[in-house]
Amino acid sequence: MKRIGIIGVGHVGSTVAHTLIERHIADELYLFDKNTNLVESECFDLWAGQIGTHKTTRLLIGTSEVLSELDILVFSVGDIAVLNGQGSRFDELDFTKKATEEWAPIIRSSGFHGILLTITNPCDVITRYLQELTGLPKNRIFGTGTSLDTARFKHAVGTVLAIEPDSVDGLVLGEHGDTQFIAWHSTFVGYQPILNQITPEQQEQIEALTFSLGGKTFAGKGYTSYGIANQAAQIIEAILTDSHRVFPLSVYSEAATMYIGHAAKIGAQGIEESFPPSLSTTEQKKWAASIKWIQTMYEAI
Amino acid sequence: MKRIGIIGVGHVGSTVAHTLIERHIADELYLFDKNTNLVESECFDLWAGQIGTHKTTRLLIGTSEVLSELDILVFSVGDIAVLNGQGSRFDELDFTKKATEEWAPIIRSSGFHGILLTITNPCDVITRYLQELTGLPKNRIFGTGTSLDTARFKHAVGTVLAIEPDSVDGLVLGEHGDTQFIAWHSTFVGYQPILNQITPEQQEQIEALTFSLGGKTFAGKGYTSYGIANQAAQIIEAILTDSHRVFPLSVYSEAATMYIGHAAKIGAQGIEESFPPSLSTTEQKKWAASIKWIQTMYEAI
Amino acid sequence: MKRIGIIGVGHVGSTVAHTLIERHIADELYLFDKNTNLVESECFDLWAGQIGTHKTTRLLIGTSEVLSELDILVFSVGDIAVLNGQGSRFDELDFTKKATEEWAPIIRSSGFHGILLTITNPCDVITRYLQELTGLPKNRIFGTGTSLDTARFKHAVGTVLAIEPDSVDGLVLGEHGDTQFIAWHSTFVGYQPILNQITPEQQEQIEALTFSLGGKTFAGKGYTSYGIANQAAQIIEAILTDSHRVFPLSVYSEAATMYIGHAAKIGAQGIEESFPPSLSTTEQKKWAASIKWIQTMYEAI
Amino acid sequence: MKRIGIIGVGHVGSTVAHTLIERHIADELYLFDKNTNLVESECFDLWAGQIGTHKTTRLLIGTSEVLSELDILVFSVGDIAVLNGQGSRFDELDFTKKATEEWAPIIRSSGFHGILLTITNPCDVITRYLQELTGLPKNRIFGTGTSLDTARFKHAVGTVLAIEPDSVDGLVLGEHGDTQFIAWHSTFVGYQPILNQITPEQQEQIEALTFSLGGKTFAGKGYTSYGIANQAAQIIEAILTDSHRVFPLSVYSEAATMYIGHAAKIGAQGIEESFPPSLSTTEQKKWAASIKWIQTMYEAI
Repeated sequence: MKRIGIIGVGHVGSTVAHTLIERHIADELYLFDKNTNLVESECFDLWAGQIGTHKTTRLLIGTSEVLSELDILVFSVGDIAVLNGQGSRFDELDFTKKATEEWAPIIRSSGFHGILLTITNPCDVITRYLQELTGLPKNRIFGTGTSLDTARFKHAVGTVLAIEPDSVDGLVLGEHGDTQFIAWHSTFVGYQPILNQITPEQQEQIEALTFSLGGKTFAGKGYTSYGIANQAAQIIEAILTDSHRVFPLSVYSEAATMYIGHAAKIGAQGIEESFPPSLSTTEQKKWAASIKWIQTMYEAI
Repeated sequence: MKRIGIIGVGHVGSTVAHTLIERHIADELYLFDKNTNLVESECFDLWAGQIGTHKTTRLLIGTSEVLSELDILVFSVGDIAVLNGQGSRFDELDFTKKATEEWAPIIRSSGFHGILLTITNPCDVITRYLQELTGLPKNRIFGTGTSLDTARFKHAVGTVLAIEPDSVDGLVLGEHGDTQFIAWHSTFVGYQPILNQITPEQQEQIEALTFSLGGKTFAGKGYTSYGIANQAAQIIEAILTDSHRVFPLSVYSEAATMYIGHAAKIGAQGIEESFPPSLSTTEQKKWAASIKWIQTMYEAI
Repeated sequence: MKRIGIIGVGHVGSTVAHTLIERHIADELYLFDKNTNLVESECFDLWAGQIGTHKTTRLLIGTSEVLSELDILVFSVGDIAVLNGQGSRFDELDFTKKATEEWAPIIRSSGFHGILLTITNPCDVITRYLQELTGLPKNRIFGTGTSLDTARFKHAVGTVLAIEPDSVDGLVLGEHGDTQFIAWHSTFVGYQPILNQITPEQQEQIEALTFSLGGKTFAGKGYTSYGIANQAAQIIEAILTDSHRVFPLSVYSEAATMYIGHAAKIGAQGIEESFPPSLSTTEQKKWAASIKWIQTMYEAI
Repeated sequence: MKRIGIIGVGHVGSTVAHTLIERHIADELYLFDKNTNLVESECFDLWAGQIGTHKTTRLLIGTSEVLSELDILVFSVGDIAVLNGQGSRFDELDFTKKATEEWAPIIRSSGFHGILLTITNPCDVITRYLQELTGLPKNRIFGTGTSLDTARFKHAVGTVLAIEPDSVDGLVLGEHGDTQFIAWHSTFVGYQPILNQITPEQQEQIEALTFSLGGKTFAGKGYTSYGIANQAAQIIEAILTDSHRVFPLSVYSEAATMYIGHAAKIGAQGIEESFPPSLSTTEQKKWAASIKWIQTMYEAI
């Protein structure tokens, strides 16, 4: 039996559940939320969402007793919609910090010993804070980090170069937020450096598209859900099948002494290895700036 | 190329899109909505929702020009959330009637010649009205009808008898609404009549659960999405693969001279055959009552 | 971790493995065969069969040590190709009886406590013999039985009536062999008895097609593989997801005191419930004849 | 409707069909083979292989009339088993050359205007010969080439470094045969050059494993099927969904004036762009040797 818990059943949490069900990744999904009517409602709707397919993922209402039996726990509290598109990252942080402080002791005292995946924003700060509050080993808790930004980057390259996004081998580094940056020197298309294949105009176009996609998605529907749920589902599948797949994630960096987005290999035991980015001089500055900003937010807690 | 359009990108429409993408059923999805920011936003989010899977469903903004090239058009306007849980079916009808009148002429004049699948409620009435306004052949337009209610019924049987819902062979007949009823005499489990296998208490329990699931889902999250999207996706797949699969649907009944929920076989050309229900005396009365109520609502348009 | 073992890596065993991999049903597949070069070869080929899909089912060489950790064990020794289309069922029985006697003590002494699924023919006899030799509880060992024959029956109905085979609710009962018969009175299409919907000519046509498909498949390629692997994969998925799905299987019948094909509900603990067929007078005679013939073969061991 | 033809229904051709069915990539599969009993048999078995899944890929016997309506045609004649592990590539060439000459005029005169994918060995030579005999545009005919060798290479890296093969970004270049070589300088793990991350011993180990997997697979079962079918299915899906995915393929090289394995981007129109490999001095020599050997075999036709 593969058991997954999802804490926070807003747009993101329920879309993660739906994506896991569609891909038949888990056997049992436990939904946790302070709004128990919402949990019951999503369980009913997600059950109905399977009839006719001969597939079975059991939906269950999460309880603190079950936490110790879960393989993976997704932390997706703090619906970004709370901001109504208003307010700064610090306002968001204030909201999600409190939610983190509410759930952390419950996780800590439950005997949970699986892998904890954090989606809640600001991702790098919340992951660090949750690690400290739960005391989980650093390889067993990490965040989705720049995995979604990397997906948007690949989509942007795909749009500009008319290539399948998954045939782009590259990533976005740093904070899952405004200080993130594209690792241009580590990006390849057709097994060749992308920088040999594009004009400066194309490079600018890709950057602009990459960094605007999140904002445009948010502006239209008030939140983002499918993109992040897709990354979470792939990360969860990689853990449950012990696949040793490489993702850009918010992983603890010994050098930076914090959680920050870079590549890591994951399996049944969580983070197995991380790949410190090799950076150009310009990229080093961006990396440092990202570290500084994450630290600033962390200290605001 | 398999091309599908979705008119109305609220919770239902976008979840239909997501489910189609997850199941790789279409090549191109065209999203239509008066809220163009929302359409653009969902396109971005659904694109991102595929990166990393090596699967490609193209998301495109719907235009009236493209309608004539679509294989299937889903009509899911009129987010039920407009009611905020308040008001009667007639209030809902008032809202969706207007939306139907807005879109029907656009569809009619576009040269659309695919299959039209209606989800908008009250489903049986809107399907009939949309057929009249678009002039589409009756086999090429039909509604999801009691397919979702049937799913809930199977889930209820599954819960009470500890059996896989898809191993229950039965259906809900009539209106997709309060006058619907379970076709107990046409329901089989393990290739035997279910009525030989359950107590009256179990029968009551199943009925209560079947009819309460929709309301409970609505009460918790303010709308239902995964259950209905699952049915829509299966119906669409059956059409696109010309599978001749049987579903309970809102299909035109010559006897009742209206659209009403009963079993039909569908394929590339839409409805290929419908199965008039064989009813017990009690069931006949319920069928007649359902017809009468659908007619009442229809006349209120 | 979901672990499955397959004993006998001929055409059937390796196609079962391939189907399980394609459907991402297991995490680890252990292949057992006296021909160790063949096992290694299939492991290499099946590994390569996944690259590029981001899916991971680990292929491993089976050893007696690992048997105690398996959730499910598939018994598919005795490639029917040994007969070269010559010889009777008794010749086949002679071959597979010996293979059963070789493997049974290995299974018995290994501490295996999962579910054992038998494919090897004659299926009803070998399942019974293997149950006796291994001492496994009768609910934890069963055969694919008439599941494949039922699939062929549904395909035949689908061909004659232009309907999706999975929209046919019916089954084939009795021996997985020449004494099997169609349970016409328990077969429904569109939630109505099929016998009300077809002519005697169509009934004959369906019977002829149902019973000739196996022979024709065997005649052309010398064995059958995809059809049976599909059934095995669905049965295995139902067990691993504890779905309580109903299948026609070779299940132990208390009334007949033997394994014989009829409907049963399966889950994580194996057979949860079987559905004794309700038979017409003609069908009762066929059922008795099937029991008699299975007993004759059993006594020939 | 997505229509695919497969010419040659031996182990490879039928496994390609099965893989396409499992992944629901096509709507109709047309099987072509001189052995018509075999074709009929595989159709029956593959039909049965779908019952119970609510999925429909139609299996049909291929005729020359239907060729003009196919989107893709797979050329997989010439079962390697003919060699019984004996004989040289030239013996194989002699066999498959004749098969090519039999089928080419049928394809040429049929009005076929889809994409032709060649699997038959020696792949680079047969693809070139078939292009000449059919007169198809060079972007509309290409071979699986080193896609399978690349999969084996990724599996080898995965084994040695405990990493998911699909997280290895690299490829094998040149002939699909003994003169092929690993493009070490274009191979990346964790977005960094692999050569910075492995010891010379590991490099040797990976090379040895890469090049031995094919032979070992062949030795054990007498042919290889799952690995190549997996590549073919992914290539076909990329064409049918117009995904612009990059694969190592046997593509026409203007510089080499022949078909030879290197990276190319494919979509609905076939080859859209190829990526000439950037080679180290050592790799240039290997590339030249591979070209020379392919030319030698070609001249032997």
